[in-house]
Amino acid sequence: VRLIDQRRLPHRLEIVEARTVDELCELIVALAVRGAPALGAAGALGVALASATDEDLAGAAARLVATRPTAVNLAWGVQRALDADDPVAEALRVADEDVERNRRLGDHGASLLPADGNVLTHCNAGSLACVGWGTALGVIRSAVEAGRRLHVWVDETRPVLQGVRLTAWELEQLNIPYTVIPDVLAASLLASGEVDAVVVGADRIAANGDVANKVGTYGLAVVAARHRVPFHVAAPVSTVDPACPDGAAIAVERRDPAEVLELAGARLAPVGARAENRAFDITPGELITRYVTETGVWSSVAALLAGSGSA
Amino acid sequence: VRLIDQRRLPHRLEIVEARTVDELCELIVALAVRGAPALGAAGALGVALASATDEDLAGAAARLVATRPTAVNLAWGVQRALDADDPVAEALRVADEDVERNRRLGDHGASLLPADGNVLTHCNAGSLACVGWGTALGVIRSAVEAGRRLHVWVDETRPVLQGVRLTAWELEQLNIPYTVIPDVLAASLLASGEVDAVVVGADRIAANGDVANKVGTYGLAVVAARHRVPFHVAAPVSTVDPACPDGAAIAVERRDPAEVLELAGARLAPVGARAENRAFDITPGELITRYVTETGVWSSVAALLAGSGSA
Repeated sequence: VRLIDQRRLPHRLEIVEARTVDELCELIVALAVRGAPALGAAGALGVALASATDEDLAGAAARLVATRPTAVNLAWGVQRALDADDPVAEALRVADEDVERNRRLGDHGASLLPADGNVLTHCNAGSLACVGWGTALGVIRSAVEAGRRLHVWVDETRPVLQGVRLTAWELEQLNIPYTVIPDVLAASLLASGEVDAVVVGADRIAANGDVANKVGTYGLAVVAARHRVPFHVAAPVSTVDPACPDGAAIAVERRDPAEVLELAGARLAPVGARAENRAFDITPGELITRYVTETGVWSSVAALLAGSGSA
Repeated sequence: VRLIDQRRLPHRLEIVEARTVDELCELIVALAVRGAPALGAAGALGVALASATDEDLAGAAARLVATRPTAVNLAWGVQRALDADDPVAEALRVADEDVERNRRLGDHGASLLPADGNVLTHCNAGSLACVGWGTALGVIRSAVEAGRRLHVWVDETRPVLQGVRLTAWELEQLNIPYTVIPDVLAASLLASGEVDAVVVGADRIAANGDVANKVGTYGLAVVAARHRVPFHVAAPVSTVDPACPDGAAIAVERRDPAEVLELAGARLAPVGARAENRAFDITPGELITRYVTETGVWSSVAALLAGSGSA
């Protein structure tokens, strides 16, 4: 399994290779590959790798799913490959479908963005988070392709900095105007009318509409609601977990405090400092204006499931 | 004028010296000294330095005030030294008064904190931001000294990281339990009941109660209000600017984008990236539970001014 090593971006575009499921699991934990839809494809490819190398499929699947507890797409991709007669062919199908699915999602969501204005996004829900095109960033790309003139505020997204490293890199490649901001500036921009819409991705969507996404999403949604700025969540239908009743039932991954206390090998904090590092937070459905999927634009998850044939 | 070089913390405690007003202005712009009350003392000492070196006082005062447009204390300290017959003696008085004033402020504010619980603070409003004791951190110190058992959530405070570098360093010295968090985690902690109170400092308080403070304060206040977590602002009376009607009249300093795009000399962003770097934001008075000053605890700025003999 070959993938872009996202830890090296934006400075170097390198491909890294996993020859065993354990190597792939290490790459997933280290965030060489991340983003809910990309994890779906990685999970399916992991089962394909186990099948190609005659590893025990059930054991490989369990190890893959355990790497990241919050994103439901990982388990979904693993299951699709497990359920297939030919895991390798199915994994390639999962990966191929992703791009076309995100294109449809982007086209549906483009209509939510202004003809001319400022859109804010958090973390990276672009090509790098998927196999291609992107979800939240896919909506922005589709809108720009359709002639809308957008400028993107890019939350830097502490602690792992997916915004300034990955989203900025993608927008630079795409020649879409953008400005990086510290996450803490977003609230003032929302207050001053400098943001016309917020679009983010999702790692899991509960049956009641609550959304788990990168930590920082919740605060953004609260401030957007105060200023009546539309707050949209863009994700494939596979991100919805109908078995999960609400946000309280979603396990939030805790990661290494070193991601907060150090940066690029340099220590930021004094000796002795501890840090709390939760990778995700939960945004209640009441704060979400629209859910955008490959099947359409939805005002609730109930409508989404009914309209997507997944209820 | 000798001061702690805050750019070197938490790794090295170094003293830096300014021999001219221009050298002091450079140190202020570079954030070697920062924090509203400390800037008040630095401003007064700058005028004293001009007087001791026979520089033009009015010109020196204007250059000092222009270094940081948001914190009103800087202009206040400069004016106190300018108005005095002996600027040197007056500047030393401004500095000496600061510690005693913050002690009184801390003692008033301590009663607002729980007997046992979690307090969250943003940026650094500790000893380093003052001449001594601190304002927001002074309230926490006074409460701990009075026997309250507190744990402090320390917002790292992007982009200059005053929380993880300075507040964590002070709490480490004081042996007060604390945990550093990425700023984006604060909203979830407020939502989950893991924060009993928020205490921050201020750089300018308008007559209507609006507060300019480190960028990120506004978003924190919005989320705290949603979860009915008390949100207190601790600052000396000199931070109130009765001539300033409201937050819209406060100039918010824009700083070098490199503070966002680089860290410790390492580039975070791709080549070509731009960033927006506003150092402060405005929190409307309606979101502030109590104002804590050396004269007491106040529910409004009108009451504060009347009760402090400054109306």
